[in-house]
Amino acid sequence: EEEFSFADHSHRRFNPLTGSWVLCSPHRAKRPWLGQVEEASSEQRPTYDPTCFLCPGNKRATGAQNDCYTSTYVFPNDYAAVHAEQPDCSTESLALVAGENASSDLFRVESTRGQCSVVCFSPRHDATLPELSLGEISQIIRTWQSVYGNLSADPSIAYIQLFENKGAAMGCSNPHPHGQVWALSAVPSEPAKEIESLKAYHQAHASTNPNACLLCAYVRAEEENAAAGEQSSRIVLQNESFMALVPFWATWPFETMIVAKRHVTSIASLSEPRIADLAEITQGLTCRYDNLFQCSFPYSMGLHQAPTAAHPDAAYCHFHMHFYPPLLRSATVRKFLVGFEMMAEPQRDLTAEQAASRLRAQSSIHYKKPSL
Amino acid sequence: EEEFSFADHSHRRFNPLTGSWVLCSPHRAKRPWLGQVEEASSEQRPTYDPTCFLCPGNKRATGAQNDCYTSTYVFPNDYAAVHAEQPDCSTESLALVAGENASSDLFRVESTRGQCSVVCFSPRHDATLPELSLGEISQIIRTWQSVYGNLSADPSIAYIQLFENKGAAMGCSNPHPHGQVWALSAVPSEPAKEIESLKAYHQAHASTNPNACLLCAYVRAEEENAAAGEQSSRIVLQNESFMALVPFWATWPFETMIVAKRHVTSIASLSEPRIADLAEITQGLTCRYDNLFQCSFPYSMGLHQAPTAAHPDAAYCHFHMHFYPPLLRSATVRKFLVGFEMMAEPQRDLTAEQAASRLRAQSSIHYKKPSL
Ligand SMILES: O=P(O)(O)O[C@H]1O[C@H](CO)[C@@H](O)[C@H](O)[C@H]1O
Ligand SMILES: O=P(O)(O)O[C@H]1O[C@H](CO)[C@@H](O)[C@H](O)[C@H]1O
Repeated sequence: EEEFSFADHSHRRFNPLTGSWVLCSPHRAKRPWLGQVEEASSEQRPTYDPTCFLCPGNKRATGAQNDCYTSTYVFPNDYAAVHAEQPDCSTESLALVAGENASSDLFRVESTRGQCSVVCFSPRHDATLPELSLGEISQIIRTWQSVYGNLSADPSIAYIQLFENKGAAMGCSNPHPHGQVWALSAVPSEPAKEIESLKAYHQAHASTNPNACLLCAYVRAEEENAAAGEQSSRIVLQNESFMALVPFWATWPFETMIVAKRHVTSIASLSEPRIADLAEITQGLTCRYDNLFQCSFPYSMGLHQAPTAAHPDAAYCHFHMHFYPPLLRSATVRKFLVGFEMMAEPQRDLTAEQAASRLRAQSSIHYKKPSL
Repeated sequence: EEEFSFADHSHRRFNPLTGSWVLCSPHRAKRPWLGQVEEASSEQRPTYDPTCFLCPGNKRATGAQNDCYTSTYVFPNDYAAVHAEQPDCSTESLALVAGENASSDLFRVESTRGQCSVVCFSPRHDATLPELSLGEISQIIRTWQSVYGNLSADPSIAYIQLFENKGAAMGCSNPHPHGQVWALSAVPSEPAKEIESLKAYHQAHASTNPNACLLCAYVRAEEENAAAGEQSSRIVLQNESFMALVPFWATWPFETMIVAKRHVTSIASLSEPRIADLAEITQGLTCRYDNLFQCSFPYSMGLHQAPTAAHPDAAYCHFHMHFYPPLLRSATVRKFLVGFEMMAEPQRDLTAEQAASRLRAQSSIHYKKPSL
């Protein structure tokens, strides 16, 4: 009788962080592709571009002028999605769009305040994360720490999202290496789900382990699995403080997560040696990404941690970073999470183990680095 | 003192069907766009393409040959995401990828069976949904009815997803107008959430209204809102049986929903006059979509209804179709739901009311139709 094989047979895997499922169809990567082809972003850029809104000393679209910065540079987003000051949404305001039904449970609205900033990673127009030095990446982490610390001290802020959209395929509208910060007066849906899961896991296991944490347990389990053999390993690389892996329940083809190996609630508490470890693993992972298809690998990346340092559920949170890259087959052929995925359930075309093994096989030296 | 205004101030709206929130930043549409530009799909196609895998009489990539069909045409997907027969996933199989941790709540897996088919909408290579006649669209609906009926009779099938990916921007790999059917042995995450919400709503309101239904109530509320004035109307068009509207909680810029005005659990029970009404509203909505940016408007569309005709929760389900189109500003500039949206919460750049008003303003005559 035929045995079930993860590499051949369709199955669903459960994501314990979000409480949802992903459909895995590993044989599907064999179908021919006649659909949309992306532009590969491997073109050489100048170190300084006089027309770039983010380069040091340049004027932005609004007329504001950037400092002549030499390291990281944080400034307010000129087109912020949220603002610090605005009126509350009263029942009378809601009546203007929901009429008599303004008080019904079908028309629920909240006014949202906050602030949005841009974090330039480097003055260099051409140097993406994997191309920066460890010292430069450490400086970005220190900048995140200070942004997170300052916003945590603002009582009107309930949640701080640090993230990066890299590449045109991920909606990035300026190639100058930068990330963003959106800080809001409410905890958004995705982190709210994760925190619920982390809390529920803790509560379910606290009687046998007072420090029980879903992600601590997951890291231990993945260490054991890797020790049992390559076939069951989803770890791409690791150092003393962090692990980069393709989660068992990954959705995007080469989705990864950088996760703290010990319970750390946010970047705020990372000491200098931990910062150096995070810089190293970030460089190692993004370098392998670029090497996979020999291109500047697009992705959306974001930090998940305590919503703010003072949040009442902060202790349940476990610092991690998600990387969601769209590419599937090559520098120009991406995965589309569309029809079935939008209406029914995310679906992937290779297993997490296959993706991890391909990323592990990449060199830790960036393909663009001139060989000596 | 300044009043809260939906068109100017950031707010979150709650989606009662999925239980999640969307962040609305209406002023954000003003920012300049220097990012990715799509190819507009307005090119003229031949009525028959000898190299197309879907045209009548042609050979497919696998060598199978299409019938010389003259109406709709259903055939098995040659690269199906799920198969009717495969082994179960035992704990021993799971141990190969999860080792000692195979029984942990962090490594949950289900084997998934099912079948996938393709539904060609018409023998014509060039005619998309808005360009087909009402009679031809009615024939597509009758085909959906029979596919849904047959699969519902198969005891191994728990859920049937009918959907269409239209346009290269939505991952469609063949421009010949077609939809898909993915039928599975388990109810996927998205419809499971919707059914939970519909059930909870019914149970919460059943004591005062034994027929209480979230979507019946929503349709009534939107009728009242529209009667109160254009400003509070999200209805794009309607007829006796169906309403096409931009839901109050829409995520995609021009997201819409076609919803049955009376409680109908699935397409299975639609009589001929109801089929004609559904054809009319589908044509009317997709035609306005094409007219909005004078292009073949890309989208993913799918039917939500009773998972199968015999599903124990079928009575709670209320037939509706979601349309998720990516375009935001023009035929070539789309919305990217990336960084913040993936890590935190979906975000939109115009209100549902603004989107509805722009769609309502479109002509019901397709822009490509030669004027007399
Ligand atoms: O089945 P197709 O058209 O080849 O593929 C398309 O639709 C599928 C179902 O939504 C997606 O999984 C694919 O990513 C997409 O490219
Ligand atoms: O803020 P940017 O870079 O202009 O815009 C990009 O990131 C935002 C946050 O993820 C998204 O809402 C936009 O759709 C995307 O184009």
